[in-house]
Amino acid sequence: MSKDSTPKDYKLKRHQVLNPDQYVEGIRLGNISILSQAITLIESTNEKHEDLGQQIIEKCLPFSGNSIRIGITGVPGVGKSTFINTLGKQITSEGKKLAVLAIDPSSQRTKGSILGDKTRMEDLVSDLNAFIRPSPSAGSLGGVARATRETIILCEAAGFDVIFIETVGVGQSETVVHSMVDFFLLLMLAGAGDELQGIKRGIMEMADAIAINKADGDNLIKAKAARMEYENALHLFPASESGWIPKAEICSATANFNIDKIWEIIQTYQRHQLSSGYWQNKRKNQAKYWMHETINESLMHLFYSNPNIKVMIESLEKEVLENKTSPFKAAKTLMATFKI
Amino acid sequence: MSKDSTPKDYKLKRHQVLNPDQYVEGIRLGNISILSQAITLIESTNEKHEDLGQQIIEKCLPFSGNSIRIGITGVPGVGKSTFINTLGKQITSEGKKLAVLAIDPSSQRTKGSILGDKTRMEDLVSDLNAFIRPSPSAGSLGGVARATRETIILCEAAGFDVIFIETVGVGQSETVVHSMVDFFLLLMLAGAGDELQGIKRGIMEMADAIAINKADGDNLIKAKAARMEYENALHLFPASESGWIPKAEICSATANFNIDKIWEIIQTYQRHQLSSGYWQNKRKNQAKYWMHETINESLMHLFYSNPNIKVMIESLEKEVLENKTSPFKAAKTLMATFKI
Repeated sequence: MSKDSTPKDYKLKRHQVLNPDQYVEGIRLGNISILSQAITLIESTNEKHEDLGQQIIEKCLPFSGNSIRIGITGVPGVGKSTFINTLGKQITSEGKKLAVLAIDPSSQRTKGSILGDKTRMEDLVSDLNAFIRPSPSAGSLGGVARATRETIILCEAAGFDVIFIETVGVGQSETVVHSMVDFFLLLMLAGAGDELQGIKRGIMEMADAIAINKADGDNLIKAKAARMEYENALHLFPASESGWIPKAEICSATANFNIDKIWEIIQTYQRHQLSSGYWQNKRKNQAKYWMHETINESLMHLFYSNPNIKVMIESLEKEVLENKTSPFKAAKTLMATFKI
Repeated sequence: MSKDSTPKDYKLKRHQVLNPDQYVEGIRLGNISILSQAITLIESTNEKHEDLGQQIIEKCLPFSGNSIRIGITGVPGVGKSTFINTLGKQITSEGKKLAVLAIDPSSQRTKGSILGDKTRMEDLVSDLNAFIRPSPSAGSLGGVARATRETIILCEAAGFDVIFIETVGVGQSETVVHSMVDFFLLLMLAGAGDELQGIKRGIMEMADAIAINKADGDNLIKAKAARMEYENALHLFPASESGWIPKAEICSATANFNIDKIWEIIQTYQRHQLSSGYWQNKRKNQAKYWMHETINESLMHLFYSNPNIKVMIESLEKEVLENKTSPFKAAKTLMATFKI
């Protein structure tokens, strides 16, 4: 495939496999068909595909890094899809290209995806400047996270200016998303009863901003009160290292109210962090974190899938729970077995 | 050493080493000299001492578990030592035995300890029902944490009813303490400027209660206002699994004001958690956590001290930071080396 044979709208045939350079060329031209297939390779557990995927990643790395990576979380019912649709439209209307990715641990069970319901993103679905990619539907959270992180690199090489990573605010996936984005946005509702919102402890402290959605009609007054409360609460949190104080704002995605303000907060954050050098620092720390996290996970896998460990661990864990042996001693016994 | 040769006040001679059963016998009699030496064995990096220490732990396990384990954190200047002294006095005045331990990562550098300044704990120092043990002064946070966790077991076997574990609220040690205590108390000051209090993000969400100390004199009104603010903030946090809603209270350790209320909060918590079964559950989860955490740490140590890894890791990390290779690829390369 020479340069003139890969126009931007070139469609790959079914089962057509390119070589790494052809993928990279297509990706850099912004060819969605080729980008999509490259992502599929990255998500694959087939070793050959994975290798090819890794080669593409390596070649795309020099062209990556130029987007705003935004994590968006909130429990089901908070209006995430509609919010992403409206904010996304705001962004593409400024001539920017937007990619929407997702990390959804539950999709491992349902083989579905939180982005499956595209009816609430109908504007984005038909927007040529928007690319929506559902969550990988198989693998551990670690595997899904790795694939998503590498999909960011491909999307950036394909020229996307803004990347959303959506997740439901109920599990461990938020920490994972937080460690791969520049900005972390938490969607909340007013007056839903704080205990009922189901946001996991610790997530609020990760937020760079809280958007109180559905601030329309009868809900507006409650939303305003909630904004005050959250702003006070966020103020009580210790300031982050970068000096950024998390913001709270009300909005309504269905009424397109204040969505521009949310976007302005994100852009203010970017200016603030870029000028302090914290933006670049955070990215470097994240890359380092991912390297060591991957090592950590691989070691765990090596250990817990070891046949000798598998035989012993259950009974030792039982002894620990029954106070018959100490956690340290049990761990030491297992480690001695592992080393053999 | 027969039973009648180990009275409670029997003092070990310098360098005198007992056998495991003798240590356990002495500990169970509440002999402080023997307890202290057993703790020293646990803290030792000498393999022979460590082995002896582990044997003592195993034999003490059946007699452990009957204390309230309380984590107390707050930045320097919050009045932690005085608070511990006053609350400790309250507890021993009820006829209970109190052990005060500490986890202080900074002591690795200074070879000192946050409990070194015993002048602010003068009442406890001279209290026969109180036992104060400074933080282990050497080793990694993991090692210090392990030793502290096992010291809890020895103290419980020695009949201590309440165990404080003190830490400075500025580092990673809070997470570690949080994972070994039943109740986590955060000391704060009013009007010190929230940003200036230096509490690390995430710590507030771990607290089962916040005590606003130094609520006396001119400070009282500010402290009351702070209590309201914190209570509102805590209310915004998602409820913990156990259903316990963290409390905020004002107190003054120097004026002995409301210290009994703090103690009452802790006891209410205990009743609440015991009746729901969550108390026991949490302990079991913690034991399991420590087993897997120890495995994790050992694996990390095995990996990062591997000579082949040591040779390669620096340049690979550099390549990751310079975007020349992906974190995943770098980790994979290292893992391939490790397996050889």
